[in-house]
Amino acid sequence: MTTTDQSIRIPYEVLKSEFLRVLMKTGFSEKGAEKCAEIFAMNSLDGVNSHGINRFPKFIKITRDGYVKPNAIPSLVHRTGSLEQWEGNLGPGPLNATFASDRAMQIANENGIGMVTLANTNHWMRGGTYGWQAAKNGYALIAWTNTCPNMPAWGASDPRIGNNPLVLAVPYKDDAIVLDFAMSQYSYGKMESLRAEGKMLDFPGGYNKNGELTRNPAEILESWRVLPVGYWKGAGLSLLLDIMATILSGGRSTHQIESCTTEYSVSQVFIAINLKSLHNFPAIENSINMIIDDLHNSNPIDPSVKIRYPGESVLMLRKENTEKGIPVNKNVWEKLTTL
Amino acid sequence: MTTTDQSIRIPYEVLKSEFLRVLMKTGFSEKGAEKCAEIFAMNSLDGVNSHGINRFPKFIKITRDGYVKPNAIPSLVHRTGSLEQWEGNLGPGPLNATFASDRAMQIANENGIGMVTLANTNHWMRGGTYGWQAAKNGYALIAWTNTCPNMPAWGASDPRIGNNPLVLAVPYKDDAIVLDFAMSQYSYGKMESLRAEGKMLDFPGGYNKNGELTRNPAEILESWRVLPVGYWKGAGLSLLLDIMATILSGGRSTHQIESCTTEYSVSQVFIAINLKSLHNFPAIENSINMIIDDLHNSNPIDPSVKIRYPGESVLMLRKENTEKGIPVNKNVWEKLTTL
Repeated sequence: MTTTDQSIRIPYEVLKSEFLRVLMKTGFSEKGAEKCAEIFAMNSLDGVNSHGINRFPKFIKITRDGYVKPNAIPSLVHRTGSLEQWEGNLGPGPLNATFASDRAMQIANENGIGMVTLANTNHWMRGGTYGWQAAKNGYALIAWTNTCPNMPAWGASDPRIGNNPLVLAVPYKDDAIVLDFAMSQYSYGKMESLRAEGKMLDFPGGYNKNGELTRNPAEILESWRVLPVGYWKGAGLSLLLDIMATILSGGRSTHQIESCTTEYSVSQVFIAINLKSLHNFPAIENSINMIIDDLHNSNPIDPSVKIRYPGESVLMLRKENTEKGIPVNKNVWEKLTTL
Repeated sequence: MTTTDQSIRIPYEVLKSEFLRVLMKTGFSEKGAEKCAEIFAMNSLDGVNSHGINRFPKFIKITRDGYVKPNAIPSLVHRTGSLEQWEGNLGPGPLNATFASDRAMQIANENGIGMVTLANTNHWMRGGTYGWQAAKNGYALIAWTNTCPNMPAWGASDPRIGNNPLVLAVPYKDDAIVLDFAMSQYSYGKMESLRAEGKMLDFPGGYNKNGELTRNPAEILESWRVLPVGYWKGAGLSLLLDIMATILSGGRSTHQIESCTTEYSVSQVFIAINLKSLHNFPAIENSINMIIDDLHNSNPIDPSVKIRYPGESVLMLRKENTEKGIPVNKNVWEKLTTL
């Protein structure tokens, strides 16, 4: 990411302090505000402004409007062996998700695998956050959330399914390989950015009002007919992830999350596996290294483009943004200082 | 599916008996042959001939060639809490996978969730098989396998990643909702069928030799450059599923499964959740019904095409093929009778 005319670079610590200030003013406890500010700032540091600074004002608004309870914490509803069902009590999504993935890791310490579900929690922002956290601590993580209805089912024109991001993460070297996989081909955030820049998508990302596949983000944002990843396949995966999140948590399903403006009270699942508990633990590091080495040995179609694993470019952006500051839109930054 | 000139209809029991005869002749025990014949026949009954009768001769060949050990059964390598790692001993894939998903369900009976991994097992044929089996017994199942390298990484031209099918299944009414999701947009089996019929794919399914996206299955089968589901997204999910299958089982990864002709010694993961153990179990049936009712209320783009959940059309095919017999290619049937 390079800075544009409207872009300025803000150091990570400055951005985080600003988030902290606003969160404290919004009624968060010091501890909660600290963790929440860190997650939003890290998302921007990793190049995901759509779930960092660009999303923060909306997060504050729906908290001040009462949809997110700044100091609510999850409560245990039911425990059965290696599976725990928690009530999210409408607490802040990033804090609830951090709690749930931590708890899944604790269960995995005892039982190899741990599963924690959250009912009535809130938007976790960037799903990859919990993947990085778990994998850096030596766990494999599988987690997903449902969302408001923001995508039509395959063959349909009205949005009834969610883009329900799925996260898979494993440790790699000092860091992690993290896949953060929403079921729409492009995120609304990405399409909004490209529309603002007057650019086209690389591949068709949805249908226009006339039902034709299009690469024009403006047309898709008008129709709300985003394309599921792999057409019928991503639509099917979205449905199954929603059903599982709903029934495993006892929470709400996509069709019950009525408004995409507030989008509160979602359902989430976190499965952690303690790699140290496996018989082959000593060989795992080498095993992953070999897989990535083989991937990197691919024949690139364009010789100047390196073949990368999910999360590889994030590490480079994180380094660059740590050194130079995080590129943020000047107007968005100024708005943040007034919150 | 309708019968064509080269297609005849064979009753399920006749097809299964024929499989049974050949399996017994290939050294399977009576019990193993019975279950294996049932799985192959069910796959054809459900309209998945590519993993039923059409695949059976290859399965027999690699068994007779010694890659699949007809009477090998899995052995426990390591148990830690709710997670078990099993060695597949190169047994028949469908039998090993049935064993592993059954074992995951047994663990889930005790601990809410159960995870079983298989190293050095063989191709499980249709992944959906294990989803149907588990969901019909009241479990949610998440399972996946790695495969030989049959797809290029995103941006690459040489096949180094697998299409690594992922299965998610939940109970629904007297049956199940089953997603069987390979990471390539189209299966090789589907493309071979369409090529034989001289038909095009509905959407681009890969690149031709000149690196252009194409709907022509013949060109893709020549280049071996199949398109991952959702471009870079499906390629990323494929990689993570391979890494997880490899490290959780201690088995081989895609790059170590050298030949796609024999494709033996793969790695698999099975996660079962016992829905009866959840606090909201009494509400689950209604919860799923409501989600499917909402899906069915979608506005179809083409008013004559009903919006369906994954597996819905399988049920209709199963019913039709039970009544009328299973449509199979005449030559394939005749070949089977000579095995």
